[in-house]
Amino acid sequence: MNFASDNTTGASRAILAAVTAANAGQSAAYGKDDFSKKAARLLNEVFERECASFLVNTGTAANALALAAVAPPFGAIFCHADSHIMEDECGAPEMFTGGAKLIGIPGEAGKITRAGLVTALSRYPRGIEKQVQPAALSISQVTELGTVYSCGEVAALAEIAHEAGIKVHMDGARFANALASLQCRPAEMSWKAGIDVLSFGATKNGALGCEAVIFFDPATAANLPYLRKRSGHTLSKGRFLGAQMIAYLEKGHWLDLAKAANAHARALAEGLTKIPSVRMPWPCEANEIFAVLPCKMDSRLKAEGAVYYEWNFPERDAGCAPPGQDEIFVRLVTSFATRKTDIDRFLAVASSAGI
Amino acid sequence: MNFASDNTTGASRAILAAVTAANAGQSAAYGKDDFSKKAARLLNEVFERECASFLVNTGTAANALALAAVAPPFGAIFCHADSHIMEDECGAPEMFTGGAKLIGIPGEAGKITRAGLVTALSRYPRGIEKQVQPAALSISQVTELGTVYSCGEVAALAEIAHEAGIKVHMDGARFANALASLQCRPAEMSWKAGIDVLSFGATKNGALGCEAVIFFDPATAANLPYLRKRSGHTLSKGRFLGAQMIAYLEKGHWLDLAKAANAHARALAEGLTKIPSVRMPWPCEANEIFAVLPCKMDSRLKAEGAVYYEWNFPERDAGCAPPGQDEIFVRLVTSFATRKTDIDRFLAVASSAGI
Amino acid sequence: MNFASDNTTGASRAILAAVTAANAGQSAAYGKDDFSKKAARLLNEVFERECASFLVNTGTAANALALAAVAPPFGAIFCHADSHIMEDECGAPEMFTGGAKLIGIPGEAGKITRAGLVTALSRYPRGIEKQVQPAALSISQVTELGTVYSCGEVAALAEIAHEAGIKVHMDGARFANALASLQCRPAEMSWKAGIDVLSFGATKNGALGCEAVIFFDPATAANLPYLRKRSGHTLSKGRFLGAQMIAYLEKGHWLDLAKAANAHARALAEGLTKIPSVRMPWPCEANEIFAVLPCKMDSRLKAEGAVYYEWNFPERDAGCAPPGQDEIFVRLVTSFATRKTDIDRFLAVASSAGI
Amino acid sequence: MNFASDNTTGASRAILAAVTAANAGQSAAYGKDDFSKKAARLLNEVFERECASFLVNTGTAANALALAAVAPPFGAIFCHADSHIMEDECGAPEMFTGGAKLIGIPGEAGKITRAGLVTALSRYPRGIEKQVQPAALSISQVTELGTVYSCGEVAALAEIAHEAGIKVHMDGARFANALASLQCRPAEMSWKAGIDVLSFGATKNGALGCEAVIFFDPATAANLPYLRKRSGHTLSKGRFLGAQMIAYLEKGHWLDLAKAANAHARALAEGLTKIPSVRMPWPCEANEIFAVLPCKMDSRLKAEGAVYYEWNFPERDAGCAPPGQDEIFVRLVTSFATRKTDIDRFLAVASSAGI
Repeated sequence: MNFASDNTTGASRAILAAVTAANAGQSAAYGKDDFSKKAARLLNEVFERECASFLVNTGTAANALALAAVAPPFGAIFCHADSHIMEDECGAPEMFTGGAKLIGIPGEAGKITRAGLVTALSRYPRGIEKQVQPAALSISQVTELGTVYSCGEVAALAEIAHEAGIKVHMDGARFANALASLQCRPAEMSWKAGIDVLSFGATKNGALGCEAVIFFDPATAANLPYLRKRSGHTLSKGRFLGAQMIAYLEKGHWLDLAKAANAHARALAEGLTKIPSVRMPWPCEANEIFAVLPCKMDSRLKAEGAVYYEWNFPERDAGCAPPGQDEIFVRLVTSFATRKTDIDRFLAVASSAGI
Repeated sequence: MNFASDNTTGASRAILAAVTAANAGQSAAYGKDDFSKKAARLLNEVFERECASFLVNTGTAANALALAAVAPPFGAIFCHADSHIMEDECGAPEMFTGGAKLIGIPGEAGKITRAGLVTALSRYPRGIEKQVQPAALSISQVTELGTVYSCGEVAALAEIAHEAGIKVHMDGARFANALASLQCRPAEMSWKAGIDVLSFGATKNGALGCEAVIFFDPATAANLPYLRKRSGHTLSKGRFLGAQMIAYLEKGHWLDLAKAANAHARALAEGLTKIPSVRMPWPCEANEIFAVLPCKMDSRLKAEGAVYYEWNFPERDAGCAPPGQDEIFVRLVTSFATRKTDIDRFLAVASSAGI
Repeated sequence: MNFASDNTTGASRAILAAVTAANAGQSAAYGKDDFSKKAARLLNEVFERECASFLVNTGTAANALALAAVAPPFGAIFCHADSHIMEDECGAPEMFTGGAKLIGIPGEAGKITRAGLVTALSRYPRGIEKQVQPAALSISQVTELGTVYSCGEVAALAEIAHEAGIKVHMDGARFANALASLQCRPAEMSWKAGIDVLSFGATKNGALGCEAVIFFDPATAANLPYLRKRSGHTLSKGRFLGAQMIAYLEKGHWLDLAKAANAHARALAEGLTKIPSVRMPWPCEANEIFAVLPCKMDSRLKAEGAVYYEWNFPERDAGCAPPGQDEIFVRLVTSFATRKTDIDRFLAVASSAGI
Repeated sequence: MNFASDNTTGASRAILAAVTAANAGQSAAYGKDDFSKKAARLLNEVFERECASFLVNTGTAANALALAAVAPPFGAIFCHADSHIMEDECGAPEMFTGGAKLIGIPGEAGKITRAGLVTALSRYPRGIEKQVQPAALSISQVTELGTVYSCGEVAALAEIAHEAGIKVHMDGARFANALASLQCRPAEMSWKAGIDVLSFGATKNGALGCEAVIFFDPATAANLPYLRKRSGHTLSKGRFLGAQMIAYLEKGHWLDLAKAANAHARALAEGLTKIPSVRMPWPCEANEIFAVLPCKMDSRLKAEGAVYYEWNFPERDAGCAPPGQDEIFVRLVTSFATRKTDIDRFLAVASSAGI
């Protein structure tokens, strides 16, 4: 009953098999191999557009490289106050950009609102020498709180950003889960909604370690080969990244994996909803569930082997009362590899403890 | 007949199998998994000492992180003028250290000499405010020119460095090849010879992508977790790095691989030595051969499918005449996966063209 | 009637005369001159302690150098959400530290509260690899909103910081104005209250351009000579900085200047208090006044030649109602050079327009 | 008899008087004052062109800001191996550019040669991902060894640089001395010869501390306001920089100062030439003299109160034999404030000791 993270799962069989298959023979080094090239072509197909894409090993690298390409050292990068780039990357965006400042915007259920963005931008008008200069908006899809922006919400934020003359980045560490939730096309959720550069994650959704930084306007990616190299993210045996991405994309494998993860989360959420002593501050829209549990239930679940993290309750974002003294706020994450039996057992334990 | 690089080869069977085996089940993320922990223990055993070790994906990351741990932004890092950190990492050491300056030292056949180091150090006395301050010596073992420092040579350079109050880093991207060449113990070639921090490479010698930064005094590694994280080099599914390193080290697999690569190179070098129109500026000591070939021979070899790189002839370092008008200077690299038939065929073509 | 800033004023006569006097003869360059040495001695006397002090030209340089000495690139620097280092230095702290993150703490009337600091620190426990690591607390004395921490308030915050294992920096751009307000000794308001490193400003209080970075524990300043040099802040003709600081400190000149500035502000504040249509969100404690004025009054004042800035009304910090539709929130700053006639005229215009 | 540096001298009377005069009244802060604006206009006149110019306090700041405007973090900056930016700024260019690499080019008597530049550029072809990318050429006029490039030499180097697609920076810390030596117009020695951005020094030639970064194509300076601010080099009381520059430029004051300094050096050099036991490795072309002296003479001069620095003898650059065992290599610098009596006395002592 491991619901700690989608990172604690290994790779899907198909992706692992592709890595094994790619091992044979000689390949050009440093991303000049045929696997990487084919992966780039497939990304173009998936996004219905000529893109400039760069494979790396971690989401932090993808985000930091994407931001370094669009923000100068004196830039302001607007993002959600609780976003991954703000809180969970130990200053990687600052390192890769050479010191840009992340401006945290509070917002409901993990989402930046239009009003919030407008207010934040108004505090950093262009041309005030003493202030960092507006450079980029970064939004997370799925958000840090497991919610999903609609394509219209993305487009509305991107429009505000573009009017302010700044680029829009999407941290798509769980892009597939969001897509499966919205049931739209990748292009609709990205460049057609105004995204300029995307961190396209595969690791959390079945790869061993593979993410793509995708520039929808290839001209903006001119510096990326050097930025990637000097950050140590140009793998010599690039074929193994290419092979992962190919297997991820081919035959809709990535969407199958995401749909499975989301379905597991939905089942878990539905089960929890039926337990009166559990409450959820916002709906489960992808593969993450946030819930207030009685401590008694929490203890029983852990005693039975359930693994998951306690989370900070985001007061300003929540649609339910905060945890009381005998309650705990937790995050549960499912993945393609979650077992239905684990969900059933988790719910059974919770139900029996939750009366 | 691919002799372009040891990077164009895939992984060894054992290492690939270990990655596959590691895929099953749930593992803690971000290097807290059992595979990574076991890898750390094995590294301690191999080096006969309690070390602080950190797994990353690329040699550039390993080098840059190692240097960032020992050099301040205003530091001077002494290295060979043609070293990988100087010429081939697009400024990664500068990025990770926050701007330290690499001081290139010329030297024979890729090696820094004691005299060269003393002279370089004398130009950067400690305490001159306008100058960068001496922080580290970095030596490459195997060197960029395929030569190998004896343990005594390493110790002599390290002694000079330590007397000057600076740390000693070894870029061991081909550590195993050097070790197989010297036939000594890992400890002798590293900390017993005065190395403080080591980039211990596995990628070129059979891993998919795996290097360890090893601090022989764990106290000096306190910042490494944060430096690694913020550079995007802390893999979420860290088990796959751990599994590679375990398979690499267990049962002497790494040395078997390196011995094979070195033996291939020796066979190739011996064959070339017998061709009168070929000359080599220094002996082949590991798995790289540098040679001046007649252009006619070069054309024939390429026509027959041989792959290898032309190289800059390092005038000051060489022990033979530079290439003439109808000659070319080339580098040939072997790996564990080099086939004896390719060597035989290469030598046959070269011989027939070399009369 | 210029109340725009204490930066729009020139230097005091005594300081200007000292610069002129220092011009004669030859002096050692780069801060090795006798003036700089004497300034350092005087700072030791003023602070009743052996300090390591470094003269620079701007407050931004002083702050950024101080922070670079105490925070690593992956550090968290806690400061008020509206502080100068957060909002008004275009990312200088990020540049000088190599990417540290500033964590803004909201607080009443420009001051960080103990509860606010405790909460902020609790969000950054030491050792969480994905988060920036607690490195420093920076407090502004006088604050950005013109208020003054009591020595007890400084000590309470410093105690919390030291318990968390982090250093405490004071941005003392208006240190003299705070001191004149509190009527205590420099040592009491700084190291005796737990300050580890101080940006000691003179520019706003009568120098041409001169600030000192003062380390109360000289051992922590070992890197400063290099950090200063590489940031371009080691003046070749350092005598001119030394001479300014000497004249500033000798015979209590600095306190005379600050007392005059504060007295002017007090007179202005008292006059404004008597006008019913004006309200002030917090008391004037040094040389800055913040007030809500009717727009009609604002227009009249400007028509009469008054110069001052509109300011963002800090809702969370204020002790009065925010400006209504026909009102404006403004900042008025006095200096040693403010003329009493200007204050009288300003109040006369305001009174006549304020009925 | 102080010939240590042109930095050990104070300011010229006219410049000091201008600073005093500028002190009266209120001025806009942060370089928006009328003095700074007038200085910018005068620089336009002097250079016969619309420029974007920025005043700062030190030559290191000027150089580092200029380079930061034209080189990315992964850039290669070509410069003389012994240049000030390479050896004497403690890594400022690396800090301001975010990690660019300085590529030292050896050359005769402090000058980069065309062949040397072509060779260096050939080692950094554009587009090789593992290498830093060619970004700028920086030449020093006067050079570190006191020699002066002819306008034709500057133009030849700039042409090679521009053909390689890189910008050309001139470190003109002693621009005036070079100009006085060449007797040409400022435009001829700068933009008409291909210089894109100039560090225009005044400090060594009579200012208290004032340098201008001048972009001959204002469009390339768009980032400079922010780069200057975040490096702490935007002075709040900018009027004092503006006033210095105005006084420096008005009525040809700067050229008068430089002519005086050069004439003093010429007199000193001519006197030394007549002493048989003294030899000079290259001619004195501006205000610096480099000479090999007998140690005996050196001792006598110092005993008589002469002050000057020993210098590293640049073997590859020199046109005379290196110092023998009983000899010393020294640098002598004159300034506008050098006294003829000091020169006469120095020569008298040297002559009497030099037989």
